[in-house]
Amino acid sequence: MSSAPQSRPFPGPVLVVGCGLVGTSVALALTRAGADVHLRDANPEHARTAEMLGAGTLAKPEAAALVVVAVPPDYVAEVVADALGEWPDAIVTDVASVKLPPLQALAAAGTEGLERYLGSHPMAGSERSGPTAASDNLFEGRAWAITPHAAVSELALERVRDLARTAGATLVEMPPDEHDVAVARVSHLPQVMSVLTAARLHGGPTDHLALAGQGLRDVTRIAGSDPALWRQILYANRLPLVELLRGVRDDLDELLDGIERRQVIEDVLGRGVSGTQLIPGKHGEERTAALATVFVQVPDQPGELGRLFRDTGQSGVNIEDLRIDHDLGRPVGVAEIAVRSERAVELADALTERGWTAYL
Amino acid sequence: MSSAPQSRPFPGPVLVVGCGLVGTSVALALTRAGADVHLRDANPEHARTAEMLGAGTLAKPEAAALVVVAVPPDYVAEVVADALGEWPDAIVTDVASVKLPPLQALAAAGTEGLERYLGSHPMAGSERSGPTAASDNLFEGRAWAITPHAAVSELALERVRDLARTAGATLVEMPPDEHDVAVARVSHLPQVMSVLTAARLHGGPTDHLALAGQGLRDVTRIAGSDPALWRQILYANRLPLVELLRGVRDDLDELLDGIERRQVIEDVLGRGVSGTQLIPGKHGEERTAALATVFVQVPDQPGELGRLFRDTGQSGVNIEDLRIDHDLGRPVGVAEIAVRSERAVELADALTERGWTAYL
Repeated sequence: MSSAPQSRPFPGPVLVVGCGLVGTSVALALTRAGADVHLRDANPEHARTAEMLGAGTLAKPEAAALVVVAVPPDYVAEVVADALGEWPDAIVTDVASVKLPPLQALAAAGTEGLERYLGSHPMAGSERSGPTAASDNLFEGRAWAITPHAAVSELALERVRDLARTAGATLVEMPPDEHDVAVARVSHLPQVMSVLTAARLHGGPTDHLALAGQGLRDVTRIAGSDPALWRQILYANRLPLVELLRGVRDDLDELLDGIERRQVIEDVLGRGVSGTQLIPGKHGEERTAALATVFVQVPDQPGELGRLFRDTGQSGVNIEDLRIDHDLGRPVGVAEIAVRSERAVELADALTERGWTAYL
Repeated sequence: MSSAPQSRPFPGPVLVVGCGLVGTSVALALTRAGADVHLRDANPEHARTAEMLGAGTLAKPEAAALVVVAVPPDYVAEVVADALGEWPDAIVTDVASVKLPPLQALAAAGTEGLERYLGSHPMAGSERSGPTAASDNLFEGRAWAITPHAAVSELALERVRDLARTAGATLVEMPPDEHDVAVARVSHLPQVMSVLTAARLHGGPTDHLALAGQGLRDVTRIAGSDPALWRQILYANRLPLVELLRGVRDDLDELLDGIERRQVIEDVLGRGVSGTQLIPGKHGEERTAALATVFVQVPDQPGELGRLFRDTGQSGVNIEDLRIDHDLGRPVGVAEIAVRSERAVELADALTERGWTAYL
């Protein structure tokens, strides 16, 4: 049933409940795609701000084809149950960060119409919060987890997939329990580690922080996120999270006990490097995408490589990797420039035009 | 003795020993400023690549006004001692990440000419390494620590300050021991935390990593850095680092023991948020720079705020902060747009031109 996002408006009215960062961004993306989007929020300021941003209308819809519940984790089960009752023909999804607890709560309460509920989770956020931080492209190219349960209907699957695609996201489907284990590792653990790093910035002379560089800023960026929201997320997913944190403490103890031995430090550092190489997405893609090497003869003279870089930059082709092979027998070096294979010929031609001896 | 970077070439020949990322970047910045830069590296490939990049010449200088030692921490003391002996008229600095141990080693060895040595440390790097990752603007706007010792000469201070300014960096002067405590907190601790986070990516199903978002990438970016180099840094600075890591372990234990209690989670998260607010630099500056508020009347209608954002964007003035004040008594809201004060009038005028009622 796949359909290109902008090809047709979303089938029927959509009600977005919760006009924070994620809810308002979902509403903006759906509105951009031509959907009939209605907004609701317990906080009238948020709802009106979202409407003023063009995310949709505060008018109550006649009926709803889809209800998107974008409220904090503590309220998801309750709001989903209400939505299933209020809109008997609607598919209901939520976009919260933890998927098993609300499903269990709904099932335990014997909720009617559970086949119309399908939890999902767009892997996008910001250290900023609220509707004014929202954007209609927040989800573009991001993963959007869809977590089917045993009783879910085909229509629910179809409509929530359509939602994620309309927002420009990439679908990732897995059971709710697996999702929670996965986000504990890729989202909740990094959040805690970022927080623990930022927390250590207290207690030192503040002028020491004048030495802060980009590394510290990157590691601590998400530590600035809304604590009230994250308290709910970490609490809801504490079981898989605690297991990972125990592993971190073991690594930390290993490092503390062995820091006098360089080998111990190097072992821990090595596990970190190999860990980063497991991450897919932009960097991973670049590392694993089909690359081709363009070989360029570079006169072994001062500045020649700088000139090659400038000419390569002007060609508009992005350098993925670079090696310099100095053939010690000859007065010329060979630069091996790795680029995405589909751009290789273009680069070779551009460099040849500029007088370089370049070949594939 | 301050002088604008490009106003005159650096006084006399500079020898850069070590053509890795930092050494080659220093050489490129000095060359750009018109200095006479000479290069040396134990690895001839690195030296020749740096020369081909236009960082300087491999020819040995007649004399040197400044020697910049850019070798791994383990070799700093030895290479600095050799440089002081080989270039009796030169000021010698190093750019390594840890400052007290090499100074102690040089003093303990009764090194001649210690008054001509002044350690320094540019707070810039990359998860990439080697000369091909170098850039002549690596240090622009970054802090460059200068760590005077009791016996240092005025000329040494003047020349190393000149080096940092020529590279476009901001000078931060503090004693070597204080520097090491400071970087343990702002650089070495984040490195370890990033590594511990990335190390936990092992052991889960790899398809779980499809849910990885920007947060994980930011937290783990520096974990991809050269382990051989970082082993030396962490080992050299292990004393202050261990203290901080013990504090992290205490916080971690607090979280593990108390994760069943929401208050404990919120306390830890709160310390993280307030910690991030201690960080100066780009974000900190924006937060603390003199801001002015432009008030704009916004018709309380769908899309109006979106239109205001577009018009603001076209004005080229950056929004630092935003509040929407819905005056419930009137059919108009007021957007309070915080911008750098020197741009406020410009924004108000631009919005007025576009038909908005805007005022300061």
